[in-house]
Amino acid sequence: MPPPPPLLLRHPLSLLLLRWPRTPPPLLHRVPSFRPPPPLVLPRQQRCLSVASAQLAGPAPGAGVDEAVAGFVTGKRKATEVAHAVWRSIVQKGDTVVDATCGNGNDTFALLKMVADESARGRVYGMDIQDTAIDSTSSFLKMTVDSQEMELVKLFPICHSRMEEIVPKDSLVRLVAFNLGYLPGGDKTIVTVPKTTELALQAASRIVSSGGLISVLVYIGHLGGRDELTIVESFASSLPADTWVSSKFEMINRPVAPVLVLLHKK
Amino acid sequence: MPPPPPLLLRHPLSLLLLRWPRTPPPLLHRVPSFRPPPPLVLPRQQRCLSVASAQLAGPAPGAGVDEAVAGFVTGKRKATEVAHAVWRSIVQKGDTVVDATCGNGNDTFALLKMVADESARGRVYGMDIQDTAIDSTSSFLKMTVDSQEMELVKLFPICHSRMEEIVPKDSLVRLVAFNLGYLPGGDKTIVTVPKTTELALQAASRIVSSGGLISVLVYIGHLGGRDELTIVESFASSLPADTWVSSKFEMINRPVAPVLVLLHKK
Repeated sequence: MPPPPPLLLRHPLSLLLLRWPRTPPPLLHRVPSFRPPPPLVLPRQQRCLSVASAQLAGPAPGAGVDEAVAGFVTGKRKATEVAHAVWRSIVQKGDTVVDATCGNGNDTFALLKMVADESARGRVYGMDIQDTAIDSTSSFLKMTVDSQEMELVKLFPICHSRMEEIVPKDSLVRLVAFNLGYLPGGDKTIVTVPKTTELALQAASRIVSSGGLISVLVYIGHLGGRDELTIVESFASSLPADTWVSSKFEMINRPVAPVLVLLHKK
Repeated sequence: MPPPPPLLLRHPLSLLLLRWPRTPPPLLHRVPSFRPPPPLVLPRQQRCLSVASAQLAGPAPGAGVDEAVAGFVTGKRKATEVAHAVWRSIVQKGDTVVDATCGNGNDTFALLKMVADESARGRVYGMDIQDTAIDSTSSFLKMTVDSQEMELVKLFPICHSRMEEIVPKDSLVRLVAFNLGYLPGGDKTIVTVPKTTELALQAASRIVSSGGLISVLVYIGHLGGRDELTIVESFASSLPADTWVSSKFEMINRPVAPVLVLLHKK
């Protein structure tokens, strides 16, 4: 286990939020009219790694793949529920996972429940370039999980294309989850964009371990949404079939229904 | 229950195969160089309806949706296994189902196991325009199911676009299953074609009952396969979202992997 970083900003009841003063030109992934937050640039040895040893939460809630897919096919369950069910079939307690687009924290919470146990080995690295998303995720988690579980979550206000800067190099990352589009309840003109999404997918493909998954839920109802889907599909299709399984689940008589793309690394 | 038809060609240990002498111009759905079998033309009152009352087989074998989809995502299970798992989540003992493309009988067998029970109310209406497919399905079933289960299967050597001619008008059809492409192990130049497939999908949408499913597995590796997929997707996309849920599952980094389209009638 690497030594803890020297400059952790800890609070026993709050989420660990690191803001770093040194600022290289940030990559924006939500545009336009966006005020970039201070990006995080940590040298490898300063990445946050904290360990809690208390008793943590039990099994993650939610539908199994069985119920989720049967529900998806019959219109009773959403694509996001299929995604969560597939995650649960792959992610194990103690795993390291990445939420590449924290949004309001729903996925971060679900992922935390999947990896948290008494071993306290599980880690959720979450990021979002919008301060409001990180704040919203932090607030949501504070209300829903205990302080020991919170120690397992590391949130960063940076673009997801830079996930390699915050996930420790030796991590066996089981899952990288994307939820592309605008922040629910936020400014709908601020959306993820194809260029940084493509860079983020490339980064995710480098850090996810064998047996792991990249999950991409693409919302296409907003301006540019279909362009982003094209980029995601193009990336997924280009992955070599001998080392990756790229699958896609979608509703095809609802023009703006989100599309789920799952990339499994063999 | 309508009265049994007057002209049943029964054999206690074989499948019921009806060939009718009167032959209107058949609609061909497998081309080219195809010798059309004698098509079946039954007036409504002469449709085959037989009932067996003996003890029948137990629950259908195979993976649940859970295992099938998780396996599909990780490349361990095929689209056909996802299809079968979804069928099992919808089809109940005693249901009426339709195998629109019998092929070698694998789907017919799976469907029979899903509907057969001691009530003997279940029915599987199977069809294939190729004599060899009907013969192959019949032979396969003879080897794998008992005579009482066989009484529940009605096979017809006709084009699937004419399914309304063989399924009794008052049937509550829970599932219509398509397996589009060429007959496995057969002549690969004889394939289903877009025009009659489209007519068959329209027919299926008329006979399937509320709460039921049209399942279409589209093989695209052969000449014309992608054109047929386009027709299926176009049909699926055109179904009104207030009464249908059209979903699609596919591998996107394997250019010739079959595509599963599921159409649920609300």
